[in-house]
Amino acid sequence: MKFTVSEIAQMLDGTVVGNDQITINSAAKIEEGLPGCISFLANSKYEPYIYSTQSSAVIVNKDFVPKKEVATTLIYVENAYTAFTILLEEYQKRLAGSKSGVEQPSFIGENSQMGDDCYRGAFSYIGRNCTIGKEVKIYPHAYLGDNIEIGDYSVIHPGVRIYDNTIIGKNCTIFANTVIGSDGFGFAPQTDGTYKTIPQLGNVIIEDNVSIGSNSTIDCATMGSTIIRSGVKIDNLVQIAHNVEIGKNTVIAAQSGVSGSTTIGEQCIIAGQVGITGHITIANNTKIGAQSGLGKSIKKEGLSLSGSPARDLNEHLRSMALVRRLPELEERLKDLERKQETSDFQ
Amino acid sequence: MKFTVSEIAQMLDGTVVGNDQITINSAAKIEEGLPGCISFLANSKYEPYIYSTQSSAVIVNKDFVPKKEVATTLIYVENAYTAFTILLEEYQKRLAGSKSGVEQPSFIGENSQMGDDCYRGAFSYIGRNCTIGKEVKIYPHAYLGDNIEIGDYSVIHPGVRIYDNTIIGKNCTIFANTVIGSDGFGFAPQTDGTYKTIPQLGNVIIEDNVSIGSNSTIDCATMGSTIIRSGVKIDNLVQIAHNVEIGKNTVIAAQSGVSGSTTIGEQCIIAGQVGITGHITIANNTKIGAQSGLGKSIKKEGLSLSGSPARDLNEHLRSMALVRRLPELEERLKDLERKQETSDFQ
Amino acid sequence: MKFTVSEIAQMLDGTVVGNDQITINSAAKIEEGLPGCISFLANSKYEPYIYSTQSSAVIVNKDFVPKKEVATTLIYVENAYTAFTILLEEYQKRLAGSKSGVEQPSFIGENSQMGDDCYRGAFSYIGRNCTIGKEVKIYPHAYLGDNIEIGDYSVIHPGVRIYDNTIIGKNCTIFANTVIGSDGFGFAPQTDGTYKTIPQLGNVIIEDNVSIGSNSTIDCATMGSTIIRSGVKIDNLVQIAHNVEIGKNTVIAAQSGVSGSTTIGEQCIIAGQVGITGHITIANNTKIGAQSGLGKSIKKEGLSLSGSPARDLNEHLRSMALVRRLPELEERLKDLERKQETSDFQ
Repeated sequence: MKFTVSEIAQMLDGTVVGNDQITINSAAKIEEGLPGCISFLANSKYEPYIYSTQSSAVIVNKDFVPKKEVATTLIYVENAYTAFTILLEEYQKRLAGSKSGVEQPSFIGENSQMGDDCYRGAFSYIGRNCTIGKEVKIYPHAYLGDNIEIGDYSVIHPGVRIYDNTIIGKNCTIFANTVIGSDGFGFAPQTDGTYKTIPQLGNVIIEDNVSIGSNSTIDCATMGSTIIRSGVKIDNLVQIAHNVEIGKNTVIAAQSGVSGSTTIGEQCIIAGQVGITGHITIANNTKIGAQSGLGKSIKKEGLSLSGSPARDLNEHLRSMALVRRLPELEERLKDLERKQETSDFQ
Repeated sequence: MKFTVSEIAQMLDGTVVGNDQITINSAAKIEEGLPGCISFLANSKYEPYIYSTQSSAVIVNKDFVPKKEVATTLIYVENAYTAFTILLEEYQKRLAGSKSGVEQPSFIGENSQMGDDCYRGAFSYIGRNCTIGKEVKIYPHAYLGDNIEIGDYSVIHPGVRIYDNTIIGKNCTIFANTVIGSDGFGFAPQTDGTYKTIPQLGNVIIEDNVSIGSNSTIDCATMGSTIIRSGVKIDNLVQIAHNVEIGKNTVIAAQSGVSGSTTIGEQCIIAGQVGITGHITIANNTKIGAQSGLGKSIKKEGLSLSGSPARDLNEHLRSMALVRRLPELEERLKDLERKQETSDFQ
Repeated sequence: MKFTVSEIAQMLDGTVVGNDQITINSAAKIEEGLPGCISFLANSKYEPYIYSTQSSAVIVNKDFVPKKEVATTLIYVENAYTAFTILLEEYQKRLAGSKSGVEQPSFIGENSQMGDDCYRGAFSYIGRNCTIGKEVKIYPHAYLGDNIEIGDYSVIHPGVRIYDNTIIGKNCTIFANTVIGSDGFGFAPQTDGTYKTIPQLGNVIIEDNVSIGSNSTIDCATMGSTIIRSGVKIDNLVQIAHNVEIGKNTVIAAQSGVSGSTTIGEQCIIAGQVGITGHITIANNTKIGAQSGLGKSIKKEGLSLSGSPARDLNEHLRSMALVRRLPELEERLKDLERKQETSDFQ
């Protein structure tokens, strides 16, 4: 990063109070700032740091009124947090922009086409009949099978495996070594104890603005499609089974798993290491706490659930508090039993 | 897929009632069928759909007697579900069959040999002294170390990593980015607080007809072998530690983990996100529910277990129901205490 | 392995009792030994096997006094277990040593340099401005981005993905398909329900003597560094989120996950499938049992914790025993209630 405060203020539509000619070359938390860094102040809890920070500039909300003298340069904006994010994005974009063209050796099958200004890394493999939009980046060691579509501006990181017939929208990011479209786990028990593989003939559809972390797995549908709706954010090591559908803007944290044919609503928040059973439906805006196990459909929107089996968060907390106090409860029970015996005896 | 109903009936040893010259180009669930699709009816719960389905043909059991008029063409077979599976398999086989030969660049070390009609994808790597059977497919970016054996008809998907000395049987499928034979997790604590690596010198043996999902890990043995017996089916993101042995036809769902030196019997069913401790033995036909944690050997065959720590499923459900009702139980306890006090007072 | 007992004794600074000219070509557990094998006896529980083992030689502690006649050759050393490990390491080193030089095709970007006696496998990719020490092994299909540093003697296994700006110390081993430095999971909710990506501009720093298993993921910091201190051992399928710091010699077993900005102390032992929440601090020498969920900071050193939510191991076990006995407790409660009713009635 190398901007003057003045350039940054212009980019963020902000107003500078202090020296606008200082050069900024890095970003830091306000409490960890060093000369040359830019920080932001959005949460008033962190306000004390603005009077002592060594950062050369701090982005603040337009209604911020210092209570003491401030040594650093201030950039006043509509929303300090959003502005800071925009700045970092701009920085990242310029960094990422450095990758383009085709590195060799790389493999592209017949009838596959890429749009303008793409990057295709060394040792990347693209099968047949693939249609790839403009400014897409396919990093080294990425594998695309046949008949795949990828929308404009999407980024496929190193070692991602995308199976035949997958459709990925625009502005998607798939991080390293994630597997999209491998077979769903379907086996039919035979009378001799063996299992017969149920062919998995469907595909995976990922809409726009989806982000999927590293080493996750999204299985193709048995028939039809496994669907990840637009704006969904999935973390690392997450398992999405065949024929699952995940609604718009739902967020799933690391190491969670969703079993086959389950439909998750929009705007849900699923914490880490959650397990969700198959063939259920989860209403919009459901929140599921870490390590929960959800075994039943949730019909009412906006619930907060926790536990395994998962239930209302507050009820779960109440029960867990009593589990902790079980030794005490048993003592009280014993006490009553003793008194009862005594009274029987009298 | 492009078959006439007549061809399909012949393939499945079935009898057609209706137009046997219609062309089928896809498969669908009976309730989602469209013209050109074939569906099946095995579970009588779905019978109502056969009177309204738009599928061009439906495979039914030979004893099926329609209760109303049926517009679609019927194919009567011994077992509709099995027949449908056979059909899809045939379709998949024809699709898969399209891959063969050697794509370049690819790497094969000295003294390594492949049987007839194999596929070796671009950027695949095969080390030294490997013996690979006939009609094996090694997809792009797969890595095989040295001294590896792979039996006929097995398929190694993109990005699979197979370490030295691994033995894989016939008809196995290993999905993308799974790692077979990396080091078991063994470290000896030293007096200065550091750990010394215990060399892992064993290997992994995978017998015939095994399927392993994507992004799973199967560690090599410290000495001897980690063994996956024939017919085992393992899902995505599963961890199998060093010196584990998994019995014939056992099924393990996604994100489960088995710790070192544990022996699992035959025909077990292990659901998702289960954890199994090390150095225990699990009897044949054991069923373990999702998110369970098994800490002790199971000697009796055929048990259903659940919970963490895992115990008899019904006992677990009973305890869980009471955990839910703990606030009520505490109220009842308080109530008794109040009465007790009152009676003490009298 | 091909050593005489005499050579082995010399390597281990041991004293031979028996035939020191026998050739050893493999290692085995004392109870599974065969002619040509070497075993060790450290735990007196296994002493009975030394009188019947078929191993050609057994390494024993210097204070070992046989109670019966021993047929095998004995090598007396300071510490039998450590000596055995050293022997196996030596064997492994000689095996591994066989890889060196550069296989083609492989890719190395401008201004990247490797030290002496390195191995660079076919289809490995090294970006720009990387500095790699001596005797480092970069296996096939490994990916290194730009500006990466790797210390002497480290081994990067097949398919490992290392993102830009990562720093890895000396003597580290990263197993297959692990991802180091992909984006932390950070998204800022917008008023329209969508999420904005928070750029992740930090990096990952891994100190010396660290081992990381297969298919694990270590995210880069949002700003600053995710830090893995020296001597840390991480198993397969583990998730380490952005800005986490893991203290010296801490061990983390398979499928565990640590959420963002958490700091774990030194010498901790974290079992499998554990979940640790974000923004907490865990004291040195903490032990956390399998499948536990830790939601709060641990300030006291040396505690053993278990359960979800995690608490003192013994308290947890006591509560779990009572959960098991809840049906009995409810019966006793009912019994008291019945008696109470009767006494009310009198």
